[in-house]
Amino acid sequence: MSINNENPIGIFDSGVGGLTVAREIMRNIPNERIVYFGDTARVPYGSKSKNTILKYSRQIIRFLRTQDVKAIVVACNTASAYALEEIRQELDIPIIGVVKPGARVACQATRNKRIGVIGTEATVNSQVYTTFIQKQNKDIQVVGKACPLFVPLVEEGLLKDPVTVEIAGRYLGELLEKDIDTLIMGCTHYPLIRSTIRQIVGEKVTLVNPAYETAKELEALLREKGLASEKPQDGKGDCYRFFVSDAADKFKQFANSILPYDIETTRQINIEEF
Amino acid sequence: MSINNENPIGIFDSGVGGLTVAREIMRNIPNERIVYFGDTARVPYGSKSKNTILKYSRQIIRFLRTQDVKAIVVACNTASAYALEEIRQELDIPIIGVVKPGARVACQATRNKRIGVIGTEATVNSQVYTTFIQKQNKDIQVVGKACPLFVPLVEEGLLKDPVTVEIAGRYLGELLEKDIDTLIMGCTHYPLIRSTIRQIVGEKVTLVNPAYETAKELEALLREKGLASEKPQDGKGDCYRFFVSDAADKFKQFANSILPYDIETTRQINIEEF
Repeated sequence: MSINNENPIGIFDSGVGGLTVAREIMRNIPNERIVYFGDTARVPYGSKSKNTILKYSRQIIRFLRTQDVKAIVVACNTASAYALEEIRQELDIPIIGVVKPGARVACQATRNKRIGVIGTEATVNSQVYTTFIQKQNKDIQVVGKACPLFVPLVEEGLLKDPVTVEIAGRYLGELLEKDIDTLIMGCTHYPLIRSTIRQIVGEKVTLVNPAYETAKELEALLREKGLASEKPQDGKGDCYRFFVSDAADKFKQFANSILPYDIETTRQINIEEF
Repeated sequence: MSINNENPIGIFDSGVGGLTVAREIMRNIPNERIVYFGDTARVPYGSKSKNTILKYSRQIIRFLRTQDVKAIVVACNTASAYALEEIRQELDIPIIGVVKPGARVACQATRNKRIGVIGTEATVNSQVYTTFIQKQNKDIQVVGKACPLFVPLVEEGLLKDPVTVEIAGRYLGELLEKDIDTLIMGCTHYPLIRSTIRQIVGEKVTLVNPAYETAKELEALLREKGLASEKPQDGKGDCYRFFVSDAADKFKQFANSILPYDIETTRQINIEEF
């Protein structure tokens, strides 16, 4: 397979959450083509073990390679936490996750050296944000909090609902008591309830969206490797291609509600064959 | 393989929910040995398509057959709705689901011929309860309502929390307006929030727990087929065996919180190999 600059970026997530990363890439690096895979048959990853997530990630990467991707973005915090480092060693194309870019920006943002991280159980238990942050500055204290109800609340569309505000108050209250001044939204679904999170934490806490930081890091990486596309994309035809392991119609509906372009087709594949 | 009366019952579910069915079988048919499989790597089934659920169910049944089960209970409403009828035709041992027993008892319970059914999106969309109920009495009106937040709320342990009461009020309010007098808890997690559901619907609505009705139907079926065990089980040794596709420790913890006996071991298997 020959890699050239017009080849697409491969992005994958356990389901629809990674679309917030795809959205930032479309907005910030509009020249790039995208192949997105959402593992909707096996979502959620957040409560699964490391070995299972590693196995699933390898299958997905084998699939993405069949689409001639020139680089891969792991648009899922759990997979970034559990699988990225091992997979990087098995690949000959660049791969980045959402954790490192988020961690780096949070380190730059904090003034009082107290950073909060919210995410799935798996992401928080992995301590991956803590590890990256303390590699940069060992004096920074990192407080993690798993928020398992946020994903189902987002998927129910209760983005600004009083119930979501109440649950957010409980989850985030603990972090506020620890006096954090920076909060990493360590799950790709969470930027969709950004305004509810903002309402609870107030204006003094800096919210870090790893999706945005990842798009910026990808842009720099493509330039550095001489892989950036120079050809503008218009969101039409096959410049953005979407694949899922189940329920393509439901995915398409969700995608169209958050992406800057309407998706024309989403294809379902049998990911276990890869 | 020879079937004899001391062989175990195979029970499967997408995860921990089916343990409410296992619990009713332990309580009501204490002579029977059990092999339980929870598909914790691929939970939840409630948002997946029919073909995916059929494929998963077939894999699980192939695994259960390796354990010499004499009968199978599909302890998952979604799999009962989408896969049971097709699978029955492929099997030479008895198989029952949770839907038919629940539907039958609801038909007996209703006075005003209005039955509500709550469950996952897949179960409600399948209209499987409606079909079974109207086969028995076409004059009965069935009102379905998907309650996608109930499972994550149960798994967060918020069984009687004000948030669960609030969400239950919204989901069930619609059904109460339709004047139902009987409500089928059409998801195996829901009996764990029975008291919250009772608080919302009041004393006048009959709550049907398909898990209990399924245990009673299984008991009758085993007698009828001459397959009932005469040997009492004590919950010790290998009379109850538990298998999962992921996160065995977490499963064991949940199981021990709801079963009448403590689980000694839960083994993890690779279900995709079956």
